[in-house]
Amino acid sequence: MAKIPHRLYLTEEQMPKQWYNLRADMKEKPDPMLNPQTFQPTKEEELYPVFCEALAHQEMDNETRFIDIPDEVQEFYKMYRPSPLCRAYNLEKALGTPAKIYYKFEGNNTSGSHKLNSAVAQAYYAKQQGLKHLTTETGAGQWGTALAEACSYFGLDLTVFMVKCSYEQKPFRKAIIETVNGKVVPSPSTTTEAGRKILEAHPDTTGSLGCAISEAVEKAVTTPDCKYVLGSVLNQVLLHQSIIGEESKIAMELLDTYPDVVVGCAGGGSNLGGLIAPFMRDKLTGKANPRIVAVEPASCPSLTRGRYAYDFCDTGAITPLARMYTLGSAFVPSPNHAGGLRYHGMAPILSKLYHDGYMEAVAVEQTKVFEAAVLFAKQETILPAPESAHAIRGAIDEALRCKETGEAKTILFGLTGTGYFDMTAYDAYNSGRMTDHVPSDEELEVGFSQLPKIPGIQE
Amino acid sequence: MAKIPHRLYLTEEQMPKQWYNLRADMKEKPDPMLNPQTFQPTKEEELYPVFCEALAHQEMDNETRFIDIPDEVQEFYKMYRPSPLCRAYNLEKALGTPAKIYYKFEGNNTSGSHKLNSAVAQAYYAKQQGLKHLTTETGAGQWGTALAEACSYFGLDLTVFMVKCSYEQKPFRKAIIETVNGKVVPSPSTTTEAGRKILEAHPDTTGSLGCAISEAVEKAVTTPDCKYVLGSVLNQVLLHQSIIGEESKIAMELLDTYPDVVVGCAGGGSNLGGLIAPFMRDKLTGKANPRIVAVEPASCPSLTRGRYAYDFCDTGAITPLARMYTLGSAFVPSPNHAGGLRYHGMAPILSKLYHDGYMEAVAVEQTKVFEAAVLFAKQETILPAPESAHAIRGAIDEALRCKETGEAKTILFGLTGTGYFDMTAYDAYNSGRMTDHVPSDEELEVGFSQLPKIPGIQE
Repeated sequence: MAKIPHRLYLTEEQMPKQWYNLRADMKEKPDPMLNPQTFQPTKEEELYPVFCEALAHQEMDNETRFIDIPDEVQEFYKMYRPSPLCRAYNLEKALGTPAKIYYKFEGNNTSGSHKLNSAVAQAYYAKQQGLKHLTTETGAGQWGTALAEACSYFGLDLTVFMVKCSYEQKPFRKAIIETVNGKVVPSPSTTTEAGRKILEAHPDTTGSLGCAISEAVEKAVTTPDCKYVLGSVLNQVLLHQSIIGEESKIAMELLDTYPDVVVGCAGGGSNLGGLIAPFMRDKLTGKANPRIVAVEPASCPSLTRGRYAYDFCDTGAITPLARMYTLGSAFVPSPNHAGGLRYHGMAPILSKLYHDGYMEAVAVEQTKVFEAAVLFAKQETILPAPESAHAIRGAIDEALRCKETGEAKTILFGLTGTGYFDMTAYDAYNSGRMTDHVPSDEELEVGFSQLPKIPGIQE
Repeated sequence: MAKIPHRLYLTEEQMPKQWYNLRADMKEKPDPMLNPQTFQPTKEEELYPVFCEALAHQEMDNETRFIDIPDEVQEFYKMYRPSPLCRAYNLEKALGTPAKIYYKFEGNNTSGSHKLNSAVAQAYYAKQQGLKHLTTETGAGQWGTALAEACSYFGLDLTVFMVKCSYEQKPFRKAIIETVNGKVVPSPSTTTEAGRKILEAHPDTTGSLGCAISEAVEKAVTTPDCKYVLGSVLNQVLLHQSIIGEESKIAMELLDTYPDVVVGCAGGGSNLGGLIAPFMRDKLTGKANPRIVAVEPASCPSLTRGRYAYDFCDTGAITPLARMYTLGSAFVPSPNHAGGLRYHGMAPILSKLYHDGYMEAVAVEQTKVFEAAVLFAKQETILPAPESAHAIRGAIDEALRCKETGEAKTILFGLTGTGYFDMTAYDAYNSGRMTDHVPSDEELEVGFSQLPKIPGIQE
């Protein structure tokens, strides 16, 4: 057989033309979203004030297996996709492992991450519906940057509520978003009722994703021709991100190989859900049985230490309730936590699959994550985002176990993005100033105690 | 014929296995470097104290047309190459031009630019010679980052003298270099004689590339097992960068097309020399006659307003003398100049070709460059480095002329890198604070007046 190349790019003809809807193959579906007033399952129409209609439909569609990617979205994808499937020859050598390590690299676009895959889809559907304006929130800034690019391309206005501490620590993210005409508002802000309420109660708050979501949703429902979009957690986002996994699977088939283990970093689940999609399909349909491993930060351990419960997606408690692994919408990770992956919950689809035993999860401390990131940067010449480096850590740990056992497993991990805007964190690590924080059970109890009470369902 | 894809990646098998030495096909060779003491042509051996031997040989070799790329360098290239040849469909549409615009994108690696192509070659030859340590200078930081990656990979120590104003304005560049074990020293520094001398004369200086070169050369010749390497200007660098043009030409042949115009940004000439290499070969050998256009900053206009003269490559006047288009080694661009491309001279190979009429040059003001950069970012989803955006400006201007004349010309330009570390400049542009500075004839005269006097050659 020919030597496996370092980088494999599909041709445009080989690129997937459809997204894959994982829910269609799940015997048990994720629990339905609940209306926060009535506690009844949310209907598609109830989402229309917030989401545009095509996306609301995708959100509720548990049945359609494959959904055509609109031509305009395919055209946009071709500007930065296919992303390469890479063989980490040098990392393997440095580790001295018999394992074969592959990674799917999603950082080769200006937004610097996989977030663009869903941003362009969401902007496209908004444009189709005749909308003029979108709102969203961003934490580390990758989603905000991606959506700004997509909105600029489709001629939509965009307001991004950026978690205040990120806004202050990452002024360059703001500059990129502004370069492509997005408007950036530090959150909490005085421009929304939700923001003013939080500022009144906590004048010194540095903000949180949950709070920025509340502001963005409020702005969307109070602005004409405006809807809200979200870069993770939602079913529709995982659907769009399935392009990552589908491309990976096609590329691995071309190389005549298949992963024994698929490893992804886990924050809200956008990358993880996309990467694992076709491999989970094989698992659900009995075609193959790869291990699926989610790697999350020990400082924000929703899967490994959270509760599988109904919770709000935002801090302001205005969104529908979703059943997911959650630390409680009031949970905020320790300020020493450097990377993204700081959302309190996990995508309902992934939560259900984890709950039903289809995937594993591990939590890792951030100094170990940066150790992996630096080793990877030296060996593979890509400086990873801290979020992505969680998956690197997971893959390296798998590969080191192979070294012990002598097994030549095939490992695939998702390298979601680049770390250009995270140099402050790298600097902290390089100079020995980075510390770890694992929340105590008591700290977690604060978040759990505020989970919503739902008569007859969650008391 | 099949539709031209948005991105074309060669396979590993299609990648060039040899660099192309442009000098071999030049009927008149570039004038020889001169020893700054004797004013006699420099001999290869005279370069050994500063350069490693294989590179000194490449520097002097005017005859060998194709030089095998060592296997280890090819392996490294495969981690981030081939770079894509892209068709700018959206930019064409936005401009309403009948022109077909292609660009070769070199930014998909952590160093963020084409600089890695020569960095890995130079680090490889240094390792081969048994060296332990390299020194260099960096301005905007792309070269320093690239060389740090290459040195880390080959296990070499590295000291980077970084122009002080860049060191202070771009702390993240320092952090990346340190992440892969490079040592960064702000220049001028007190660690060298050259630095101390400049600090004594100008205590408040913000540094210059020429000064950093002096420091890096001094450090190299006074440290055991240590040599100096440079990321532009030199013949050897243009040789290594020919990979850009050779890949472009192969890709265009696969698409059954050929450029009418090749446009590159011009600082020291590393990218320009690499991009145009095979097209200039066709010109020199009479096979084709594409126009070749260098685009340089109006604030540092070495080709369009410089003198074709012997000059030092550094401010400290310790390097050999090279005949090139130069503004004088004492020239420092205005502090409002945002991007790189601030070197006082131009690669001797390119200078000679320009002097002999084989290429054109235009100078553009930086606000027009950023205008092009922002348009490009919106249309093509890549945020370009300010340096690269000079080529975008040049290509757009060519395409707009096609719109006037109705000609469907094929334009190829080099997109050398990404602008993630240049957001301060973008922010200045976005907020209307960016200004232009075109040096007056009197300002230029200061640099010209200090050109070295060489008895019988340059009085």
